[in-house]
Amino acid sequence: MSHVYTLQYLADHVGGEVKGDASVSISSLSTLQGATSEDISFLANPAYEKYLADNKAGAVIVSAKVAEDKSGNFIVHENPYLAYARLTHLWDSTKVNLFEGSNIHPKAVVHETANIAEGVFIGAGAVIGEQVSISSGAIIGENVTIAKDSVVGEGSRLYPGVHVYHGVSIGARCIIHSGVVIGSDGFGFAPNKGEWEKIVQLGGVIIEDDVEIGANSAIDRGALDNTVIERGVKLDNQIQIAHNVRVGQNTAMAACCAVAGSTTIGKNCVIGGASGIAGHLTITDNVHITAMTMVIKSLNEPGVYSSGTGVQPNAQWRKSIARLRQLDKMAGRLKALEKVVADK
Amino acid sequence: MSHVYTLQYLADHVGGEVKGDASVSISSLSTLQGATSEDISFLANPAYEKYLADNKAGAVIVSAKVAEDKSGNFIVHENPYLAYARLTHLWDSTKVNLFEGSNIHPKAVVHETANIAEGVFIGAGAVIGEQVSISSGAIIGENVTIAKDSVVGEGSRLYPGVHVYHGVSIGARCIIHSGVVIGSDGFGFAPNKGEWEKIVQLGGVIIEDDVEIGANSAIDRGALDNTVIERGVKLDNQIQIAHNVRVGQNTAMAACCAVAGSTTIGKNCVIGGASGIAGHLTITDNVHITAMTMVIKSLNEPGVYSSGTGVQPNAQWRKSIARLRQLDKMAGRLKALEKVVADK
Amino acid sequence: MSHVYTLQYLADHVGGEVKGDASVSISSLSTLQGATSEDISFLANPAYEKYLADNKAGAVIVSAKVAEDKSGNFIVHENPYLAYARLTHLWDSTKVNLFEGSNIHPKAVVHETANIAEGVFIGAGAVIGEQVSISSGAIIGENVTIAKDSVVGEGSRLYPGVHVYHGVSIGARCIIHSGVVIGSDGFGFAPNKGEWEKIVQLGGVIIEDDVEIGANSAIDRGALDNTVIERGVKLDNQIQIAHNVRVGQNTAMAACCAVAGSTTIGKNCVIGGASGIAGHLTITDNVHITAMTMVIKSLNEPGVYSSGTGVQPNAQWRKSIARLRQLDKMAGRLKALEKVVADK
Repeated sequence: MSHVYTLQYLADHVGGEVKGDASVSISSLSTLQGATSEDISFLANPAYEKYLADNKAGAVIVSAKVAEDKSGNFIVHENPYLAYARLTHLWDSTKVNLFEGSNIHPKAVVHETANIAEGVFIGAGAVIGEQVSISSGAIIGENVTIAKDSVVGEGSRLYPGVHVYHGVSIGARCIIHSGVVIGSDGFGFAPNKGEWEKIVQLGGVIIEDDVEIGANSAIDRGALDNTVIERGVKLDNQIQIAHNVRVGQNTAMAACCAVAGSTTIGKNCVIGGASGIAGHLTITDNVHITAMTMVIKSLNEPGVYSSGTGVQPNAQWRKSIARLRQLDKMAGRLKALEKVVADK
Repeated sequence: MSHVYTLQYLADHVGGEVKGDASVSISSLSTLQGATSEDISFLANPAYEKYLADNKAGAVIVSAKVAEDKSGNFIVHENPYLAYARLTHLWDSTKVNLFEGSNIHPKAVVHETANIAEGVFIGAGAVIGEQVSISSGAIIGENVTIAKDSVVGEGSRLYPGVHVYHGVSIGARCIIHSGVVIGSDGFGFAPNKGEWEKIVQLGGVIIEDDVEIGANSAIDRGALDNTVIERGVKLDNQIQIAHNVRVGQNTAMAACCAVAGSTTIGKNCVIGGASGIAGHLTITDNVHITAMTMVIKSLNEPGVYSSGTGVQPNAQWRKSIARLRQLDKMAGRLKALEKVVADK
Repeated sequence: MSHVYTLQYLADHVGGEVKGDASVSISSLSTLQGATSEDISFLANPAYEKYLADNKAGAVIVSAKVAEDKSGNFIVHENPYLAYARLTHLWDSTKVNLFEGSNIHPKAVVHETANIAEGVFIGAGAVIGEQVSISSGAIIGENVTIAKDSVVGEGSRLYPGVHVYHGVSIGARCIIHSGVVIGSDGFGFAPNKGEWEKIVQLGGVIIEDDVEIGANSAIDRGALDNTVIERGVKLDNQIQIAHNVRVGQNTAMAACCAVAGSTTIGKNCVIGGASGIAGHLTITDNVHITAMTMVIKSLNEPGVYSSGTGVQPNAQWRKSIARLRQLDKMAGRLKALEKVVADK
């Protein structure tokens, strides 16, 4: 984070206005609480406004309303959080690879039939299979494997240790974090006399453009058709996407969610962490599911959905749970009592 | 999926009978909705019978009852789903390795004391340790590591990026997907004055024949005895098996399940995704646990088991949860009221 | 497990007293049920005392109280479980690497600017980036990748296939199991007109000394500040730690837990498997959370906490759940009835 910019430069970069000293030098981004005079910070969440008074930041990104009656150095922006997001790219150090300068590392293994565009980086220990196609600007990290006939689009980045099976298509500008597996077999078996006969998974996986997939997630290939992750989807770490699932555009899913086979999730959904969605369901667009929800039916209306009982002190929880099991009987007693009282 | 077969060939292959034109050429498998005249499809789930009327498939696998009054080309089979499963193997493209023709890739590293049978494939970047034994027909994917004294049985396949610790035994015809870790330390520590002292995990892992393990699953080695996955078990992705667990023959476990230490699961169980099973429990044979169930006691009778509250609109959920916490008091009020009414 | 020791040696090693024949030869550790005359076993859990009577072990570690009236060979120790933990290290075979004798394997790739101390082992296929610093006695397993500017402390071990991003600090004597990813991007996006703009994650990760991290866990880098795992923390397999989380000293977390962004967990907590902790919460010291708990509020008092409904036969569960949804109405009916009865 060693690049230094004037406040004016930063304001122009994010499309905001300077209030205060436009010439102040900024060398880093920081939280309000931790900022020094060389840092720029931001105020997006009103809960943090209390930290504004005595912050030591060189400048702060704020809304016009907040800036109104304050002195100091500001970038005034209608969406401070978005402005912050855009500034982070100025101090991005993730583009630094293990071995700069090389394009295809001598210890990478690339099949002679693979089609590697100009300007592709392939790290040491990566293995690129037959007929694989990698477009310009893609970064294939160390020890990544990409099997036969798969495709990686322009500018996409696969971090070290990603494993892509055969026949997988990854779009442009995707970010795939370490440990992700794409195109593993869907979980398909036909029962036969108490044993399981494997159903070879003949479909593939299509990851559209601008998708990000978090560390150690797994996306299975389809049984016959493809598993599809649409444009702009953001998946956090350790997410499980089963065969023939479709996740709609710009849907975001927090860590540890699991989606069972053949379920379709709409566009612009937000799914809280560790939620589970059963198979063969349809979740419509703009559904918000809170964390650890157990989705066992289709959700046909936009809105916020939840399940689970929430944390309690163990002693209280034991009582609640015991009563829950008596609830059917309690309902019967209530009904009987109503009848007795009505008859009196 | 470029192989072409006559319908008669396919019927013979699965042990079914042709109804219609036995000479029709079939080049692929497809769903009923997506099938073209070159595809064969199948009808296993009665819910999909509506798609049969106007499907465009070259042929469909159906039961005798369904075929009875229909015209078109069919394979009649007592178990269409099983017939479909068997046909998928005819179009299997997963046997295609990254680099065909080579047996042990020059960029694999194999210890001089390892015992590698004829016809074993070892991919680039794989590392095979001291005294490891690999039987004929096994496929060890790219960047797999197998540590000292471990064994891989005949015809088993480890996809790229599997990591096997020392002293692990994998049987014949197993399929281990990318990112799986077998033989990592069980979670064992002795508390001592507020700190944790590590208990070295001295047991191993035994994976019997015909087991499949999904991507990014982890199976810990035993503390003193072994962790055991019995013959025919099918584990989906991201499953966690703790030390000294035993999973019985032909049990299937959907993605993201976690089984805590020293629990024994019987034969022919089916465990829904994201379920958790606490430690030191016994689950008997033929238990079916639905998805996201919290198993905190032994299950001694076969049957179907569940827990969890299931998704609700958030506003309703909030009310349910608030009331759940009042339930113990409500039970008291109901009892008091019953007494009052009885006394009147 | 081929080393042989006298009982006296073992007693001295753990700070216990021999009762019986101090010269007996012990070649292995075993459970009480499985022990032979060459094994030493231990009795820590009173529930297993029934196995003591007819066990065949060469010796057993017991408390003074248990030894009192028994004949046979014993190590008497105030904490038999701790004594057992210490003995496991005598038969530890995990120090055996794939290729002994080599320090940096010729098929490892180490950047010329990396700073590798004496006595560091680096396995085949490992890739060590620019300015990485590795202290003496560290073991970097096969196919591990460590990106720019990261640090590994004295005697730490990274098992094969660990992936460390840039700017990550790992302390001394840490154990990181296969498939772990440290320093992947936190899940941060700014919404903008229905799409997500990436927030580059500029913080790092600090893993302090004596931390163990289980297979396939993922620990994200911070957004601006660091994600911190304090000294002595033990994380089991498949744990997800989001950006800017802090886990306090000696806290232990069982498998498959997920902690959302910016949450702080205190010291000496024990968190049961598959629990989820929402973001921006504070969990105080000495909190015990039972397995599969859904923590959606801060926990400010030490104690035991739980949630969830626990497994039931499916038919009973269906009734409980249906009644739970009627609970708000039942509460209303109960209140109405109370009023009617009071008015009579």
